[in-house]
Amino acid sequence: MKKGVILLSGGIDSAVTLYFAKNKGYRLKALIFDYNQRHKKEIECAKKIARLNKIDYRLVKCDLSWVKSSLTKKKLKVPLQRNLKGKDIPLTYVSGRNIIFLSYAASLAESIKAKAIFIGAHIEDYSGYPDCRPDFLNSFQKALNLGLREKGLKIVAPLLNEKKREIIRIGKRLGVPFEHTWSCYEGRKLPCLRCDSCRFRIEAFSKLGLPDPLLKKWKEK
Amino acid sequence: MKKGVILLSGGIDSAVTLYFAKNKGYRLKALIFDYNQRHKKEIECAKKIARLNKIDYRLVKCDLSWVKSSLTKKKLKVPLQRNLKGKDIPLTYVSGRNIIFLSYAASLAESIKAKAIFIGAHIEDYSGYPDCRPDFLNSFQKALNLGLREKGLKIVAPLLNEKKREIIRIGKRLGVPFEHTWSCYEGRKLPCLRCDSCRFRIEAFSKLGLPDPLLKKWKEK
Repeated sequence: MKKGVILLSGGIDSAVTLYFAKNKGYRLKALIFDYNQRHKKEIECAKKIARLNKIDYRLVKCDLSWVKSSLTKKKLKVPLQRNLKGKDIPLTYVSGRNIIFLSYAASLAESIKAKAIFIGAHIEDYSGYPDCRPDFLNSFQKALNLGLREKGLKIVAPLLNEKKREIIRIGKRLGVPFEHTWSCYEGRKLPCLRCDSCRFRIEAFSKLGLPDPLLKKWKEK
Repeated sequence: MKKGVILLSGGIDSAVTLYFAKNKGYRLKALIFDYNQRHKKEIECAKKIARLNKIDYRLVKCDLSWVKSSLTKKKLKVPLQRNLKGKDIPLTYVSGRNIIFLSYAASLAESIKAKAIFIGAHIEDYSGYPDCRPDFLNSFQKALNLGLREKGLKIVAPLLNEKKREIIRIGKRLGVPFEHTWSCYEGRKLPCLRCDSCRFRIEAFSKLGLPDPLLKKWKEK
């Protein structure tokens, strides 16, 4: 059976990526990161998704306390509209995040002899986040293959060219339990429904004419 | 003043690199990593070197428990002669170590607007460790510049082409306090004098006709 490592955040994109990889016959190990994100709730969702799929996961604590991002600094507000600064990069950008996550994944992949790292990066993210861009992912894969003992490791981002709507459509087909995914950047009990991440999610479900099971669950409470 | 981030291990190479960078006028921040290495003693040396130079340091805990290396698994013996396995890589190889360290350094560098990451990698290491090789360092620098917001970050490895003997000679000239560096892979009170790392150190000092101040210190105890 082919082995793979998946970066699992607890959001929609990585959950769909997990189901995609499983569907392709990969036996997966998941990496879940605690970087003291504001929305720690996503960690519980990531664990739940892993457990539902009987996938081993490792929770890695990742010290990024030097990063000035509204996702890691409680004092910085999460922008309600994509708050552009400098080179069109939102304040929710966490410097080096995917670079570090992929590096851990490379170490784990080599150790368990996996040949693929799955990541849920996609076009709507890489408009804003440089570490989600195809150029970066390609270049990073090359660097990994020079810096590791084992060769032939691939970074697989199956949703790279899909918009959120299409990602949800794929996920629906694969049976992703969206009620166990978390998108809101705020760490509260209920999604704020106003941050970028909430708005992308709401818009996508609504364009598909589907109810968001997460919201349904909340409404029933 | 130019800013830089330095990967500080507590060994000779990174200490000499630190003095080199300081001498070039860099204001440095140091990253010291606790990856549960057998020779945790090097961490105290790294802190000491940083403090002596009034350099801020961050100690980053780094979970690499999946790695099967004799540096992280107490059950695996440190090879006394470079124990070659497969593609000439010693059992002391820690999968992905520099990849992860450099990723953290990139995140910190971007956050403090530093344009250089200093690393003590050199030719005697990259014969064995793929993540010390010039090809990898070049390629990784390219990837970082695609994945970060700020452009122009450089990975500087000033000792890349130097052998241990020359590194010590450079260090001597720069005033590196070698008595506060640690090389032995074993985590005991005294250096074992038998592992690869000890042997490289002993050989280099002896070829230079210099006493190793670390050994002198031990003998006096």
